[in-house]
Amino acid sequence: MKFINFERHGKISFGAVRDDQVVDLGGKLGDDIRTVDDLVIHGLVSAARDICAGLEPDFPLDEIKLLKPILNPGKVICVGVNYANRNEEYKDGSAVKKYPSIFMRTPGSLVAHGENLVRPPESEQLDYEGEIVLVIGKGGRRIPESEAYNHIAGLTIMNEGSIRDWIRHAKFNVTQGKNFERSGSLGPWMVSADEVKDYTDLRVRTRVNGETRQDDTTASMMYPIAYLVNYISTFTELQPGDIIATGTPTGAGARFDPPIWLKPGDVVEVEVDGIGVLSNGIEDEVV
Amino acid sequence: MKFINFERHGKISFGAVRDDQVVDLGGKLGDDIRTVDDLVIHGLVSAARDICAGLEPDFPLDEIKLLKPILNPGKVICVGVNYANRNEEYKDGSAVKKYPSIFMRTPGSLVAHGENLVRPPESEQLDYEGEIVLVIGKGGRRIPESEAYNHIAGLTIMNEGSIRDWIRHAKFNVTQGKNFERSGSLGPWMVSADEVKDYTDLRVRTRVNGETRQDDTTASMMYPIAYLVNYISTFTELQPGDIIATGTPTGAGARFDPPIWLKPGDVVEVEVDGIGVLSNGIEDEVV
Repeated sequence: MKFINFERHGKISFGAVRDDQVVDLGGKLGDDIRTVDDLVIHGLVSAARDICAGLEPDFPLDEIKLLKPILNPGKVICVGVNYANRNEEYKDGSAVKKYPSIFMRTPGSLVAHGENLVRPPESEQLDYEGEIVLVIGKGGRRIPESEAYNHIAGLTIMNEGSIRDWIRHAKFNVTQGKNFERSGSLGPWMVSADEVKDYTDLRVRTRVNGETRQDDTTASMMYPIAYLVNYISTFTELQPGDIIATGTPTGAGARFDPPIWLKPGDVVEVEVDGIGVLSNGIEDEVV
Repeated sequence: MKFINFERHGKISFGAVRDDQVVDLGGKLGDDIRTVDDLVIHGLVSAARDICAGLEPDFPLDEIKLLKPILNPGKVICVGVNYANRNEEYKDGSAVKKYPSIFMRTPGSLVAHGENLVRPPESEQLDYEGEIVLVIGKGGRRIPESEAYNHIAGLTIMNEGSIRDWIRHAKFNVTQGKNFERSGSLGPWMVSADEVKDYTDLRVRTRVNGETRQDDTTASMMYPIAYLVNYISTFTELQPGDIIATGTPTGAGARFDPPIWLKPGDVVEVEVDGIGVLSNGIEDEVV
């Protein structure tokens, strides 16, 4: 089931999408459950699925504005250099490391489906990175790989938008180039984990103005999804509502010669089979 | 004034410390103001100072358990390699970069004053890093250096505890080695900004079992405090309640030959003149 946070007539609610129609779940699971975040944190995703099944839709999808499927993730953990051949793209002669690169993003660095990514005046190097995102449903520490999938409430999609020259500002860490306000996106919805057939064969594609730039499957991951849940939970306690962006395939704009950066007027779509399409335009920041 | 979050007889409150006595501010600024975080977010630090001045203390400091001075920071932003001579410590022949290294920590990676840092079973390389911490009181984007100090509500102290071998796990980023649960600390209190005479001459020292290991002043910073507020707010919107750890001087345990790691029984004190002493023991995690 596709769960959404949305705004309609200025009011924020949450619900599910079925055939271009919306089932509004606001108020139907108690006064404390107001967002998909609350569903996930209170372990009510399955209950919401059951309730939804017996309800008629309330209004068409085009009457609402989609918000981020998790409005306030506790942690936004991102994985770098995960798909095969990504290490070679850096052309720095370094060997593949034994462990994945991990960084964090602020929630404010991500907009919703349909909103524009923002190119700041400090740089022309706004770039896309299409990624599959895990929404953690059950917390834990040192989660065994064999248990990993049971800790996932659902999947969504991130355009892990990056300001390339700011990524290389410092001796270590990519934080600044990964955290410009509104430089990335999350959405359009969270598909509950019961619909995921095989975490090791999910296809992610990124298109810019209709042209395919990235196309790979999780079968190419050097650090597969079950491994990531185990590795990340070794150092930090995963909590319901945390999200993990699992890395991007080859083919970002930085890898072209010369590089091709995003500019106002472009439309970036990240598609994950079985999940949906996350689409965003680009605008220049007005300072 | 020294502002604290604390627990007494199982109840959480907040207040101020005066001569080993505590003024309990719980309920005195309205029902919505329950923590130092709330004071900062609602811009009530000055108001709380005025109220405190007219109140008698409620109980002695040794009757309470100190909690972290900001319980739920929106962002925990950390600066790496800031004090002069720190770049040479890496012995990698690299030039000093033009911009500081930035990474983030989860709130769960930090304990309060008086609690033990936790050494995980995955590593023996638990290390200290004494740091001065800015508590942001007024948010903003692209804050000019000339305005930076006006955005600081107060100062506190961090032991930016690190698991050294996990810092180098990946091609980029130090995230995993900086985010083991309870591997660092924050406290003992927030000293309001009105007591800070000169941000460019604050002295920070770290002692392990009474022996001085780090000793430097902010005059040695390659990226001074006003610069950091400007640089960080260029990419992310600073919000009241965010905290910025400003980097550590030379002399962490990793820099000794052979390295000296922290172990159960050790006591680490980080002292900042005019702010206080943050003290923590060490314990092994029981898994």
